Amino acid sequence: MSKIANTPKPPYYAVIFTSLRTEIGNGYAEAAKRILEIARQQPGFLGYEAARQEMGISVSYWESLEAICAWKEHPEHRKVQTRESEWYSESRIRVCRVERDY
Amino acid sequence: MSKIANTPKPPYYAVIFTSLRTEIGNGYAEAAKRILEIARQQPGFLGYEAARQEMGISVSYWESLEAICAWKEHPEHRKVQTRESEWYSESRIRVCRVERDY
Repeated sequence: MSKIANTPKPPYYAVIFTSLRTEIGNGYAEAAKRILEIARQQPGFLGYEAARQEMGISVSYWESLEAICAWKEHPEHRKVQTRESEWYSESRIRVCRVERDY
Repeated sequence: MSKIANTPKPPYYAVIFTSLRTEIGNGYAEAAKRILEIARQQPGFLGYEAARQEMGISVSYWESLEAICAWKEHPEHRKVQTRESEWYSESRIRVCRVERDY
C-alpha cells in the first residue's frame, strides 16, 4: 500500500514530475524503479509519492536543492534521462520549495 | 485526455494535495469536480494536474499565495473541507513556491 510521505516540518523541497507516457514500455519499469532506489540512497531524501492514470505525477521530497542536484547528476540517473523521450510523449519537472504543509 | 499544465515562467505557486480514499463515495465526485470549477474561476489560477491509483495526487498552480488563500476560503470550498474526513483516510496539503521548471 502506498503511504503519504512523512516529511518533516517545512521548509523543504519537492520535485514534481508530471508525464504522459508513450506506448513504448521497453525498460521503463526497471528504470523507474532504479531511479527511486537511487533517490532513497541519496543524503537528504525525505520521501516519495506517485500515481498514474492518464497522467503520471510523482513527487519526491528533499532537504535541499543540493540533494536534488546530486540525485539528478547521479551517473545512472543521467543515463536514464537520455531515454526519456522514448517513454514520455510529454513531461515537465518542477522544483519547488515547500513553504507550509498541513 | 489530461494535459500537463501550461504554467508560466517561475516563480509561481503549487498546492500538492496527496490523499488516500476511504470506501465512502457519497458526494465525493461531485464535490471534487465543483472544487476544481471554483479553482478555474479564481483570479490567479494557472493550471491543474491530477492522477489517482492507490494514492491520489492533485496539483494546482497559482500566481500567488493570496490566490491560493482566496480559493481555500471560498464558501463552497470551506463547506467541502468539513466533509474531507468522510472521503479520505489520510491526506496532506503542501503549499510550495515553484522555483524552476523545465
